[in-house]
Amino acid sequence: MALPPTRYGLPFNITRASHLELYVADLDRSLRFYTEVIGLSITQREDSVAWLRGMEESCHHCLVLRASSQAPACPFIGFRVFSDEELERLAEQLDASGLASAWVDAPFQGRTLRVSDPGGVPLEFCARMPVQPRLLTRLHLYRGGGALRLDHLQLHVPDVGALTSFYTDLGFRISEYVTADGEELIAVFLQRKGNPHDIVLFAGPGPRLHHVAFTTADISRLTLACDVAGELGYGAQVERGPGRHGPGHALYVYMRDPDGHRVELFTTHYQTLDIDDEPVRWDPREPEFGMPWGLPAQRSWHVEASPFVGVAVTGSAAAGGPLVLEEFLSGGNSA
Amino acid sequence: MALPPTRYGLPFNITRASHLELYVADLDRSLRFYTEVIGLSITQREDSVAWLRGMEESCHHCLVLRASSQAPACPFIGFRVFSDEELERLAEQLDASGLASAWVDAPFQGRTLRVSDPGGVPLEFCARMPVQPRLLTRLHLYRGGGALRLDHLQLHVPDVGALTSFYTDLGFRISEYVTADGEELIAVFLQRKGNPHDIVLFAGPGPRLHHVAFTTADISRLTLACDVAGELGYGAQVERGPGRHGPGHALYVYMRDPDGHRVELFTTHYQTLDIDDEPVRWDPREPEFGMPWGLPAQRSWHVEASPFVGVAVTGSAAAGGPLVLEEFLSGGNSA
Amino acid sequence: MALPPTRYGLPFNITRASHLELYVADLDRSLRFYTEVIGLSITQREDSVAWLRGMEESCHHCLVLRASSQAPACPFIGFRVFSDEELERLAEQLDASGLASAWVDAPFQGRTLRVSDPGGVPLEFCARMPVQPRLLTRLHLYRGGGALRLDHLQLHVPDVGALTSFYTDLGFRISEYVTADGEELIAVFLQRKGNPHDIVLFAGPGPRLHHVAFTTADISRLTLACDVAGELGYGAQVERGPGRHGPGHALYVYMRDPDGHRVELFTTHYQTLDIDDEPVRWDPREPEFGMPWGLPAQRSWHVEASPFVGVAVTGSAAAGGPLVLEEFLSGGNSA
Amino acid sequence: MALPPTRYGLPFNITRASHLELYVADLDRSLRFYTEVIGLSITQREDSVAWLRGMEESCHHCLVLRASSQAPACPFIGFRVFSDEELERLAEQLDASGLASAWVDAPFQGRTLRVSDPGGVPLEFCARMPVQPRLLTRLHLYRGGGALRLDHLQLHVPDVGALTSFYTDLGFRISEYVTADGEELIAVFLQRKGNPHDIVLFAGPGPRLHHVAFTTADISRLTLACDVAGELGYGAQVERGPGRHGPGHALYVYMRDPDGHRVELFTTHYQTLDIDDEPVRWDPREPEFGMPWGLPAQRSWHVEASPFVGVAVTGSAAAGGPLVLEEFLSGGNSA
Repeated sequence: MALPPTRYGLPFNITRASHLELYVADLDRSLRFYTEVIGLSITQREDSVAWLRGMEESCHHCLVLRASSQAPACPFIGFRVFSDEELERLAEQLDASGLASAWVDAPFQGRTLRVSDPGGVPLEFCARMPVQPRLLTRLHLYRGGGALRLDHLQLHVPDVGALTSFYTDLGFRISEYVTADGEELIAVFLQRKGNPHDIVLFAGPGPRLHHVAFTTADISRLTLACDVAGELGYGAQVERGPGRHGPGHALYVYMRDPDGHRVELFTTHYQTLDIDDEPVRWDPREPEFGMPWGLPAQRSWHVEASPFVGVAVTGSAAAGGPLVLEEFLSGGNSA
Repeated sequence: MALPPTRYGLPFNITRASHLELYVADLDRSLRFYTEVIGLSITQREDSVAWLRGMEESCHHCLVLRASSQAPACPFIGFRVFSDEELERLAEQLDASGLASAWVDAPFQGRTLRVSDPGGVPLEFCARMPVQPRLLTRLHLYRGGGALRLDHLQLHVPDVGALTSFYTDLGFRISEYVTADGEELIAVFLQRKGNPHDIVLFAGPGPRLHHVAFTTADISRLTLACDVAGELGYGAQVERGPGRHGPGHALYVYMRDPDGHRVELFTTHYQTLDIDDEPVRWDPREPEFGMPWGLPAQRSWHVEASPFVGVAVTGSAAAGGPLVLEEFLSGGNSA
Repeated sequence: MALPPTRYGLPFNITRASHLELYVADLDRSLRFYTEVIGLSITQREDSVAWLRGMEESCHHCLVLRASSQAPACPFIGFRVFSDEELERLAEQLDASGLASAWVDAPFQGRTLRVSDPGGVPLEFCARMPVQPRLLTRLHLYRGGGALRLDHLQLHVPDVGALTSFYTDLGFRISEYVTADGEELIAVFLQRKGNPHDIVLFAGPGPRLHHVAFTTADISRLTLACDVAGELGYGAQVERGPGRHGPGHALYVYMRDPDGHRVELFTTHYQTLDIDDEPVRWDPREPEFGMPWGLPAQRSWHVEASPFVGVAVTGSAAAGGPLVLEEFLSGGNSA
Repeated sequence: MALPPTRYGLPFNITRASHLELYVADLDRSLRFYTEVIGLSITQREDSVAWLRGMEESCHHCLVLRASSQAPACPFIGFRVFSDEELERLAEQLDASGLASAWVDAPFQGRTLRVSDPGGVPLEFCARMPVQPRLLTRLHLYRGGGALRLDHLQLHVPDVGALTSFYTDLGFRISEYVTADGEELIAVFLQRKGNPHDIVLFAGPGPRLHHVAFTTADISRLTLACDVAGELGYGAQVERGPGRHGPGHALYVYMRDPDGHRVELFTTHYQTLDIDDEPVRWDPREPEFGMPWGLPAQRSWHVEASPFVGVAVTGSAAAGGPLVLEEFLSGGNSA
């Protein structure tokens, strides 16, 4: 399996995975979870929508929660481009590649570009948001996991290889990937901001949003999120971990929010800025992959994910993907 | 179900659970696990036996590992009595109650009394050991979990109620216990040293040693033990946790040593010294019992334990005990 | 210098240092400090008095704050005796020794005995308080340092040796002490509950209350207390630390409350329950004494302390005591 | 005071502060300090020189220690450029600006460019080093502070404003700066890698290297570094902290190595990747600057620094700079 090359020297600089919106059934219920357990801060709230940010973030929002009578879903995931000028050039490249992008009005954001990636994932790009005070040292205001910032987004997609090329064409670098000898890509970790991932693609029925990940300061804060989850009635929603990742190496825990959207809290992992850093390959049959130690994930972790609004899910679990992966990940432990 | 009263004003003071011996197949292999992963320190080693202590302990040993071609088992568990004079009076009370105690020579211990409790558990009592330097602030020497001291011993026994009376007659106080309405005791937590447990009795085929527990400084050290376990090839032996206990409230992790003996590392829990502190009852059907949050224990945690050397195990799992408990503990998660 | 022997076999059991009262100028201001920075919980509040307890404590209070127009001072420090019967026998022994004890009505306490120790320190003893739910795992309610329980009280007294005999006669054991060769005792650490100290006596003008110490879970919580102190305007009141103690070995920080009363937060130290544990001697000229690493305390730490209500302070700094000690403690660093 | 603009669209990308060399008197002694206390790993060692890297780093070295009979000094500090092509273009720009750059042979580095900045600081730039395995999850190998990676370098320079322009011309962005109203720049924090600093310039006699900073995982590891320092005889070399920074917001501690070179260990701070992130101004007279809480730095922290090999130091303390700063930083505390 050949990895696609990363294109350097592009006329635009996508700096990072930056934000997303989620549809939720009960906004108050969701805000309680995201502020008390995960530890995000509310920048602004209206009747049926709220904008939240991490405790270290100066941006207006990394998470938009919108009350909706629809089933829980994700309308889009978002990235930052460095400047509005570069945003124009990104639009030109997307149009040239035959993807129809459109400028939209997005509250509390500068000029905003929407496009669906070749796998149907609705993406949003912008360069600017109104600047907010960082709450990093307002420790008096920290709650639960004290989420610091949005770090990455993980997707289930039916064809990892095809979609990987789209992202490397936009300048994303592959930090790590999972594949058995001579086989298809099972997963690929793509990054722009200099740590291992901004967007992660895993093989599985999709496109679906598997999880959004926020950084937390250390294992003490991560454990506090679990304890508060247990105390506030979300104990059963601690779905995987605490444990140590193989790829990325961070300490993590996964929880489901009240609508079933999945959130990861994890400690920061390593810096990868040098041209020397070649993609790291993981063999899914190595025991260290997925789980150097600890209890296997609940089965739901492998098969459930949030759909994107209005985007059909293709690729059946029976045809491979996550179930195959589950087998790799869990060894005999979860049988 | 009526709890037996605690007898005050006894002429002897059992101060704490203090030590135990384990038979192991390969002493070097076991020492690697107990020093590198758990973080005990070796006080003395001979060809086929080693004496270890925790990093804060001034006693000569809390754990004796003895190479043996027998199946892995525990020859005895031990307690400290405050003085040699009180030890004499304990011997008198045991003899008066019809239990045959005997004075034995135990290396690196003062006068030592052996007796089997009414359930057949081999016990050892002594007042003195050669004093060693505490290594508490020799942080340079800490390894893995940095185990600080032996805290408690947990047993599986067929009749919790009967054995509880024996221990309360020796002055142990019940800190917490588990029972459904009007039913038999499922578990009882007994203490002498002023925190919730020195010896814990759980209903199940026995007598068997379920685990020995060592304290660790905090969740950072506890996680380090897991990470080193994973790195040194013991990742699959992390059997339960990290998680938060219901009874006792501590953060914990359980691991199996290379012979299958079970070790718990946990952060220190609460002080209980006042006469006001009445035993806390847990209903096994409450969700907070066993697991306020997190993944269920592996099945082995519920059913496997170390036999005592030469002591027959009675009480079948089918007759109740641990399997009933497992049902309570795990909800539907581990099915 | 000969240490006084500890009397065993007493007809009463003083279990621990348990509570104290402090006069404060502005109750609201003090409650903000003790709840938000130190992390105690308010059990009960009336107009001019509040009762607080630590997050793990089941007792009604460990700290009573009383609004007073007098200068900040401490009316008494308190200990628990195991039972009301033992409390009677303690009264008898105190009376026999010529100290006039008196039964007083103390709100939210059982029978309560007051006496002044031979150095003039007002003491209170009781066996019972109304039991409260432990908040140990209500992590959602933790604030700042998340103080778990009162651990010990430290005094400045003009004659350490004389007062030490009084406490060892009550069954206190000496865990550690400070003295130069053939010289007077500079400090003595006395304990009943099985860790190094319940009451600490340091040479200096007195009697004065140097500090009350509360345990905190770990260095993360201890640092959080500092951060919240800084954020809420108490940054300059972080008077010593964070650092590592010589005697006792714990990680610590000292803060001054809004009235200047001194509070220590520290991580739990070692267990000392065995008769083998002989008092540990520190030479004040050893560099590890006081400060194995880190910045010297501010000068105020050495010379300031809270007076006891209505008790004259004797012994001048010029005559020795704290200034001599300061020299030992600080090396040349704070000059 | 006007900050110089950052130049975007440069034909080269300096990715990060990456390495430095230090002259030391006794290599074994220095290696003990940097491996046991700071927690770096030795990649390679020859008789009189050793190359070390942080536990998360895949580069060959971030620190070169060279035994030298000269006084302790720093021969150069180094930065990474993304590719060798970009390195050529950087050389062209430096030459065009009148600074004489030179290609040198540097062991275990790709093509390497040397130049002195306009203030005389010897700089080195390269794009490549031989890749090493990251030790991030080899927790079994961690020692002391477990330093993860080189993060930034801080200098004392006589004219902060002039030198700032040089670095912003190379694409560095100002994250934070210190200045009183209408006055000269006291300090400027410059970054390339997306967190607050790669190089920091403070007003003072110079050019001198004030410190090199390494990241550590959390406050537990940072405290462990202090404890090991105390244990191995370096307790008096803990010069400032642990405490919380104003600028940058991280938890920190400063130590002096056996030759007096200063090392900072600190927890990771915030991400700054967006064009919205304007430089943050600090007023040196605000109490939160320098020290939101805690003890003042030892005086040596303000006035001592390592010279660069063969570079004369200009600007006297009497003329301002660090002594003025010291006054700001310490309030009345260190007087």
